Amino acid sequence: MINIFSRTFLIIISLLPLTVSAQNEDSEMLRKIYDEALTNSPCYQWLEKLCADYPKRLAGSAIYLGAVDYTSGVLSGIKGVNSYLQDSKSNYWYRGNTEEAWVTTNDGLKTKLNITTLGNSVSTPEEGVTAEIIEVQSLEEVEKLGRDKIAGKIVFYNRPMDPKQILTFRAYGGAVDQRVYGPAKAAEYGAVGAIVRSMSLAQHDYAHTGVTVYKDTINRVAGMAVSTNDANKLSKLLKKGKVTGFMRTESRMMGERYAPSVIGEIKGSKYPDEIIVVGGHLDAWDLGVGAHDDGAGVVQSIEVLRILNNLGYKPQRTIRCVLFANEENGSAGAKTYAAEALKKKEHHIAAMESDAGGFSPRGFSFDAENDLIDGYYNYVNDWKPLFEEYGLTFYRGGSGADVSHLKSHNSLLIGFLPDSQRYFDVHHSDNDTMEHINKRELELGAAAMTSMIYLLDKYGVK
Amino acid sequence: MINIFSRTFLIIISLLPLTVSAQNEDSEMLRKIYDEALTNSPCYQWLEKLCADYPKRLAGSAIYLGAVDYTSGVLSGIKGVNSYLQDSKSNYWYRGNTEEAWVTTNDGLKTKLNITTLGNSVSTPEEGVTAEIIEVQSLEEVEKLGRDKIAGKIVFYNRPMDPKQILTFRAYGGAVDQRVYGPAKAAEYGAVGAIVRSMSLAQHDYAHTGVTVYKDTINRVAGMAVSTNDANKLSKLLKKGKVTGFMRTESRMMGERYAPSVIGEIKGSKYPDEIIVVGGHLDAWDLGVGAHDDGAGVVQSIEVLRILNNLGYKPQRTIRCVLFANEENGSAGAKTYAAEALKKKEHHIAAMESDAGGFSPRGFSFDAENDLIDGYYNYVNDWKPLFEEYGLTFYRGGSGADVSHLKSHNSLLIGFLPDSQRYFDVHHSDNDTMEHINKRELELGAAAMTSMIYLLDKYGVK
Repeated sequence: MINIFSRTFLIIISLLPLTVSAQNEDSEMLRKIYDEALTNSPCYQWLEKLCADYPKRLAGSAIYLGAVDYTSGVLSGIKGVNSYLQDSKSNYWYRGNTEEAWVTTNDGLKTKLNITTLGNSVSTPEEGVTAEIIEVQSLEEVEKLGRDKIAGKIVFYNRPMDPKQILTFRAYGGAVDQRVYGPAKAAEYGAVGAIVRSMSLAQHDYAHTGVTVYKDTINRVAGMAVSTNDANKLSKLLKKGKVTGFMRTESRMMGERYAPSVIGEIKGSKYPDEIIVVGGHLDAWDLGVGAHDDGAGVVQSIEVLRILNNLGYKPQRTIRCVLFANEENGSAGAKTYAAEALKKKEHHIAAMESDAGGFSPRGFSFDAENDLIDGYYNYVNDWKPLFEEYGLTFYRGGSGADVSHLKSHNSLLIGFLPDSQRYFDVHHSDNDTMEHINKRELELGAAAMTSMIYLLDKYGVK
Repeated sequence: MINIFSRTFLIIISLLPLTVSAQNEDSEMLRKIYDEALTNSPCYQWLEKLCADYPKRLAGSAIYLGAVDYTSGVLSGIKGVNSYLQDSKSNYWYRGNTEEAWVTTNDGLKTKLNITTLGNSVSTPEEGVTAEIIEVQSLEEVEKLGRDKIAGKIVFYNRPMDPKQILTFRAYGGAVDQRVYGPAKAAEYGAVGAIVRSMSLAQHDYAHTGVTVYKDTINRVAGMAVSTNDANKLSKLLKKGKVTGFMRTESRMMGERYAPSVIGEIKGSKYPDEIIVVGGHLDAWDLGVGAHDDGAGVVQSIEVLRILNNLGYKPQRTIRCVLFANEENGSAGAKTYAAEALKKKEHHIAAMESDAGGFSPRGFSFDAENDLIDGYYNYVNDWKPLFEEYGLTFYRGGSGADVSHLKSHNSLLIGFLPDSQRYFDVHHSDNDTMEHINKRELELGAAAMTSMIYLLDKYGVK
């Protein structure tokens, strides 16, 4: 039994980072945040509007600028929020009007493939490329096969995402090198094109795009993603004999274009120079409507400000909702943001990102520089019990592609983690539509994020 | 620092319920179970077949017997599984061919309502009932209003499920009394019919059925559920003035019918008399196809046996997959099962149920008699770390409607808990279809369940 008068007990009490009354106050505040989100949130309607009026909002496109106007308007409609743009320029990639791919087997059977050109891909020659297809499982296999086997061919990368990974982002991480570096590697060995198995755990007909990167200006061939169903089909055909592929795309880079990030800011009442960022990225690929990637993160980040304001909460620190430009194709928005912050000597104590879909929340992932993460993680761990009743837990791991640019600023980086199981069913494809968004799950995410921002604001980061 | 030669340390080690090597072995086995489920599971295909060929499988219907044959066949196709039926009789309710409801406002505007007759409901008179609608928020309000205000009217129960509940089953528990007892309560006070707001957190046009219960044989009026959208519409109309309702249904009870439960059993090699049950219910309402409720639980329970067998695991205890009849309307299957177990003096050490949908797994809920649960919960808590990497946690709470009949047998009862956010979007409605099933999430559920059954089998329950 604990003797409440013992010296040890008193020492323990005095060392507790949150007093019982503060914990009760915080617990009540979290409850209010959740109640507000679950009964009064317009964030689903915001997302409907964003996706209906501004789908396919590639940074640099006219439609992206429409999304900038729309979200700026929503932010400035929240009392106490100062909304402004941060100029930046994005490399603009244009898909072109047509893209197609076929395979022909030795018996003359022609099969159309469900494909999508990869972001950044160069075009094929106008008449397309026709070449024998060679299947590989990795970049290393291309190197091993060498120029003899690769030159003149279309390289088909077909290593699937590993379904045995429980967190689907790990499965993505284990396969996405094929998409990012596959076309460049194929070109290096003389291939005339590359087709990559879609980064999806679902077996379906959707093709999933995403960025591909070229190393040099000389060796560039077009890259496409093929649906998982057609990747399996193609692989079967290749086991039977020679398969000739045809691919044609008009896609090309169109130079730099204006694509600002959108910022909504509530000035801190007590420590205005301590900045807390919450954000997502406003741009989306030109397939589907970008509902989960990352319309969800955009409206959830705006909703953080609306909830705090509607509950009459006055932040002590400056809270900035940042809707980053161009996360999908170069992160121009995030790079500009970090560079500007450095130039202005701004002190970002923490930055949270929602860019893993609007699914049912599971927790938060914390990241920082190596010499800081242990301390930060121990510090925030005191808040963990507050989140238990909401089914959320804390992890150490990555944060988000945009906020990670603030890592060298010694900021605490936080990734909001929704359930990941369905994410790669929709990611970067025509399947990323509103029908896969659940209003309640979206709101629960906004509530979780607001709760974390509230604690960061109240207690700071030490 | 721990002195590994100290007496205290050695005592602690000897008290550890799982040695480190056992934990490693278990950890490896869980990994194998998950790998098998995520790469080799036919359970999604089983569910597709069950739902396509045997939708609307009300216990006692001809289609239910088809589902019995199909699942028996799947079970007996698993090596080492003895498949048999347990006879039981279910009260069979028939919806009839037509059901409809309208409302008419004072200005003569007629609006059709999206409704579904409640399970067990009596029919209206052939010509339907036409009466003024009165809105209430609770059974208590009907009592308070009394016969004067209620007699001759159609009572409209409109208390929504509470969106502020994080676990949607709590929101359901807080509202479902209106559906279960509402029509009977209305009849008790002289109403001619009852319309109940659908038990759903989604705002949509689907009407959600479910069981209603009459207290006596005299006072019975028809009960319907109305979609949440139309409940809101109706409530708005009532705020403007008098609304006359019309409702007509041919539904009626058709007496007792044969509806067996399906059992698949692997005899224990060492303790055959210790029985572990894993199950779901085979029957479903006659709306949608019963994909989440409870086709998912059915195929996951069968999959537990398939996985164990495919991994070459020989259970020490007897493992029984039980697909219960008639959970939706009287639990005849579960009652028969428990009664038979008692008669045969069978010793059920544990029983797990999957009846909360095929969504992404969150954990397990443990239940038992009051004098046993503390001990059981402490005991199983040693297994908790094994589930952490799979994102699962342990709770104390309810188990499942079917296995709860084994509570008085001193069994440890376990509810498999998937994420609950979307469940009441589909539950008991035409929206419960395969398109809302995610193959991977279904498999993760089967893996979680198999892992728990493995541990129960290996270590027993103490």
